[in-house]
Amino acid sequence: MRPRIYLFGDSITEESFTDGGWGSSLANHFSRTMDVVLRGYSGYNTRWALKVVEKVFPPPERGGVPMAVTVFFGANDACLPDRCSSFQHVSVDEYRKNLHAIIAFLKKRWPSVRILLITPPPIDEDGRLQNPFVENESGLPERTNEAAGRYAKACLAVAAECGIPAVDLWTKMQQIPGWQKAYLRDGLHLNKGGQRVVFEEIILGLKGAGLSLETLPVDLPLIAEIDPKDPMKSFEN
Amino acid sequence: MRPRIYLFGDSITEESFTDGGWGSSLANHFSRTMDVVLRGYSGYNTRWALKVVEKVFPPPERGGVPMAVTVFFGANDACLPDRCSSFQHVSVDEYRKNLHAIIAFLKKRWPSVRILLITPPPIDEDGRLQNPFVENESGLPERTNEAAGRYAKACLAVAAECGIPAVDLWTKMQQIPGWQKAYLRDGLHLNKGGQRVVFEEIILGLKGAGLSLETLPVDLPLIAEIDPKDPMKSFEN
Repeated sequence: MRPRIYLFGDSITEESFTDGGWGSSLANHFSRTMDVVLRGYSGYNTRWALKVVEKVFPPPERGGVPMAVTVFFGANDACLPDRCSSFQHVSVDEYRKNLHAIIAFLKKRWPSVRILLITPPPIDEDGRLQNPFVENESGLPERTNEAAGRYAKACLAVAAECGIPAVDLWTKMQQIPGWQKAYLRDGLHLNKGGQRVVFEEIILGLKGAGLSLETLPVDLPLIAEIDPKDPMKSFEN
Repeated sequence: MRPRIYLFGDSITEESFTDGGWGSSLANHFSRTMDVVLRGYSGYNTRWALKVVEKVFPPPERGGVPMAVTVFFGANDACLPDRCSSFQHVSVDEYRKNLHAIIAFLKKRWPSVRILLITPPPIDEDGRLQNPFVENESGLPERTNEAAGRYAKACLAVAAECGIPAVDLWTKMQQIPGWQKAYLRDGLHLNKGGQRVVFEEIILGLKGAGLSLETLPVDLPLIAEIDPKDPMKSFEN
């Protein structure tokens, strides 16, 4: 059976197979080596994710043992408690506890699984206010970059406490001037530039955890390895 | 467990998760309903595919039962026997027999599985001659549209004989003037326009087989269904 990586997260994960999305880029990158399985749930915060995690991931006897899982929550937890998306808000303290519980669940279910935590991305507040998908008459963004940063920091702390790798997307994306429009479509979700950053950071994170094209076996002979004079020889064993 | 569809084929399948690829479009379309699992093997013809099919698809006790499989071969079988890619050539008669054997294998392994056959695409011979990836000093294309058409016809005949649906990509793509450059990147592989056609035809084919967003259950509550005043209620059962 081919190794498998689950992508577990919110809308930024659910949308990862759109044109140039980081999920499809991973599936393309690992096209002969690893299955990329989408488990993105738009709008979910860690409270809801923790509530459903047992339904999301089948036990080994029904679904085998995946090689890796990306856990990518926080953008919804970080909605401000007094603004228009407050029903998605989770306090940073509960966010930490929920992430710990999700990781504990995954480690218990599959002791060998590699977990890669991803922080929420930064927020472009101007982009949020222009976002037509949220009803917002207050004139104030329902998410702020400062709040997202606190959740990102908490996410990194959890990774350190658990001894697992993390992608600090919040910091990484803010390293270039104009990141607000270079990486984000509506102040929160990724455009093609942002999708690319997430893909590249995950590739680096997986490589650090020992998962790369150099280490994963290729499923069946590559065309370049097949002898044109005796193709069937490649399929003998 | 979420339903699963395997994409089984050659490079046109292996490349289906590139930007705007039909595989990633399927994964995005079915993001909350069905797993799209890539089993594309560049350069493979039906002879090689038949040889490896048992390794590609795990038995039910190890991998569960998929809901559907797309079988998309023929572009390599149709390489001409006297030109530069002749080692990939398989006669049209053997192609038919191999397709029959692959379908018989899949039906035996999973009696309930829906199989969707896809014909090879048409060939733009001019595009093939400009393709820098194949060493070809003869000045003659290694594939012709006429030959691809014979394999496409055979593929449709097999589908009819087996009573399974098929996408006649060869005919479909040639319905617009300029199809050669509108759909093909190098005379054989799909550009974004071609990827779109394959995606749309597969969606239609799956719908005909009863698989669509209207019939597949959604995995976990959608954000639009969650009551902002009492979100946890949605997760009670």
